[in-house]
Amino acid sequence: MEVTPNHTQTVTGWAAMNESGKIEPFIFKRRETGVDDVVIKVQYCGMCHTDLHFIQNDWGITMYPVVPGHEITGVVTKVGTNVSGFKVGDRVGVGCIYASCLDCEHCRRSEENYCDKVTLTYNGIFWDGSVTYGGYSNMIVAHKRFVVRIPDNLPLDAAAPLLCAGITVYSPMKQHGMLKSGGSLGVVGLGGLGHVAVKFGKAFGLKVTVISTSPAKEREARERLKADDFIVSTNQKQMQAMTRSLDYIIDTVSAKHSLGPILELLKVNGKLVLVAAPDQPVELPSFPLIFGKRTVSGSMTGGMKETQEMMDLCGEHNITCDIELVSTDRINEALARLARNDVRYRFVINIAGNSKL
Amino acid sequence: MEVTPNHTQTVTGWAAMNESGKIEPFIFKRRETGVDDVVIKVQYCGMCHTDLHFIQNDWGITMYPVVPGHEITGVVTKVGTNVSGFKVGDRVGVGCIYASCLDCEHCRRSEENYCDKVTLTYNGIFWDGSVTYGGYSNMIVAHKRFVVRIPDNLPLDAAAPLLCAGITVYSPMKQHGMLKSGGSLGVVGLGGLGHVAVKFGKAFGLKVTVISTSPAKEREARERLKADDFIVSTNQKQMQAMTRSLDYIIDTVSAKHSLGPILELLKVNGKLVLVAAPDQPVELPSFPLIFGKRTVSGSMTGGMKETQEMMDLCGEHNITCDIELVSTDRINEALARLARNDVRYRFVINIAGNSKL
Repeated sequence: MEVTPNHTQTVTGWAAMNESGKIEPFIFKRRETGVDDVVIKVQYCGMCHTDLHFIQNDWGITMYPVVPGHEITGVVTKVGTNVSGFKVGDRVGVGCIYASCLDCEHCRRSEENYCDKVTLTYNGIFWDGSVTYGGYSNMIVAHKRFVVRIPDNLPLDAAAPLLCAGITVYSPMKQHGMLKSGGSLGVVGLGGLGHVAVKFGKAFGLKVTVISTSPAKEREARERLKADDFIVSTNQKQMQAMTRSLDYIIDTVSAKHSLGPILELLKVNGKLVLVAAPDQPVELPSFPLIFGKRTVSGSMTGGMKETQEMMDLCGEHNITCDIELVSTDRINEALARLARNDVRYRFVINIAGNSKL
Repeated sequence: MEVTPNHTQTVTGWAAMNESGKIEPFIFKRRETGVDDVVIKVQYCGMCHTDLHFIQNDWGITMYPVVPGHEITGVVTKVGTNVSGFKVGDRVGVGCIYASCLDCEHCRRSEENYCDKVTLTYNGIFWDGSVTYGGYSNMIVAHKRFVVRIPDNLPLDAAAPLLCAGITVYSPMKQHGMLKSGGSLGVVGLGGLGHVAVKFGKAFGLKVTVISTSPAKEREARERLKADDFIVSTNQKQMQAMTRSLDYIIDTVSAKHSLGPILELLKVNGKLVLVAAPDQPVELPSFPLIFGKRTVSGSMTGGMKETQEMMDLCGEHNITCDIELVSTDRINEALARLARNDVRYRFVINIAGNSKL
């Protein structure tokens, strides 16, 4: 492994070294603290389904060793001379975006996530040519623009997944005008993303219906997450009874599926947003799209301003993720469970080994 | 064939009697002229691809005998006592929509096309329970709400297809904010719908790129239709050079296809509208949708106010369809050519046999 010249800070992390997908301890270097940089002692890092894809090289683009993790929270330990917004001791986070060009139309609008030169927090190529290493590590150096402040009332562990799962559903909900009281929202898939979408929906006064393949999730959806309704997507009678009833749908399912039956649930002019990234194309039958003047949009995480806004709103509404905390020696076990969706709803690695959970 | 009691007016038409798909002369009855009705001597009727689907029972919903035709123009010969907006001699048209409930939220917004009880101009069930017969016939009785005024400067033959092909592309172009100068529009497929979309685009000052599988259409697209650019969708180099360059796309292709390569042409936040109705689901790969925050919408014809508005704008901008006129004894021949897309760009049947073409 080549080390970029000014990469002098030694970090302990956890990496997959090859396609075996096994995570093991890994010592590497991060860059010197630049004038615009914030150094963060990582406390927690969420485990996103994307981590699995990269670890296993599912998309054929993994650069090993890969240190996953883009739901990072921790405490500031040092700041560069040009940083005024953060100080030592601040509770902060880093999400999916590690850098962008800072200059294009998207960056100017704080849509850094759509910048042509966006650098992801791991398996990306940074400005200096180095490969980025993520939050499965005990320290990260990040440019101040890509650091998010965590409200004091949010625990750093349960807040970590907001930096990916949270913003991924919040951004389209905001941009498509869903966050207003009185609307009706369907959430397809009740996993890491879906359960946060339900929480946002309820916080903003929407009527929320969970649409799941798994009848076993009904009780939890209604009782714990306060969903107003629950239907099983394979139950045609339930699906038909909901025809043309929803204003919006957030589809969080990453398995290949047809959008047809789901689109039928939308009112005329209804909007569905796809936030997961199925490997295979989804099936889009033209009739339910056309006959209902419906819309299918995509969305990928969010920009930095929007991420801070979401985090602040989570503080106000006391929204966090439901998590299972994992110690660093059990990452592989958690990944295996994640692969079979055996998690409610997000694993978070206790990187710093804090005893107080 | 059962005749509804007050259906007393004898009409000569052309119908397919069964799945053979052969069109033959057919005498049938239309209803007495009601107080809200307009009686129209049909002069011309456009041939839409949908006619083929119904004639051949491709969708399994055809009620034979079927008298196709929903791009109807002609002259008013009689009006009901409650009709003030039309008088004998007026040049008018009837499009895809023959009736709707007049009372639901969609009807109240003049989105009759999305009314749950919309009755199509042929192969529909009217209020009185009768099956509707379309414009391949020499007379039609229509409720005043579903009659469109044709501007004096537009010839009735070349204006006829505006009632389906025209409104089908105009409605989404308007509703998605495309009709403003300076934007860039891609039109996928240069047929009946596509060529009108190009004309609307140019009339409103957009930069229009035609995207076609057929290199042979380039000259005509540029010279005759004044398209600014032309790319062949199977030419990867041309497609890649256009990545992230378009604000909007109107996709008029009714063959099964993948939206992936087309979506890549859209800028971030770009909008694609599907106006054709492929029998098979189209393939929607998630990556180009998600990474570009792009949108795929459907649209089906337009409401009545919108249709009149479109027709008036066509009058102002002198927009009509490029047509081939067909005599009533050559309908089958034209259908055979339509089936192999051998038409530029719309067949129109000369129903009244006017000698002045």
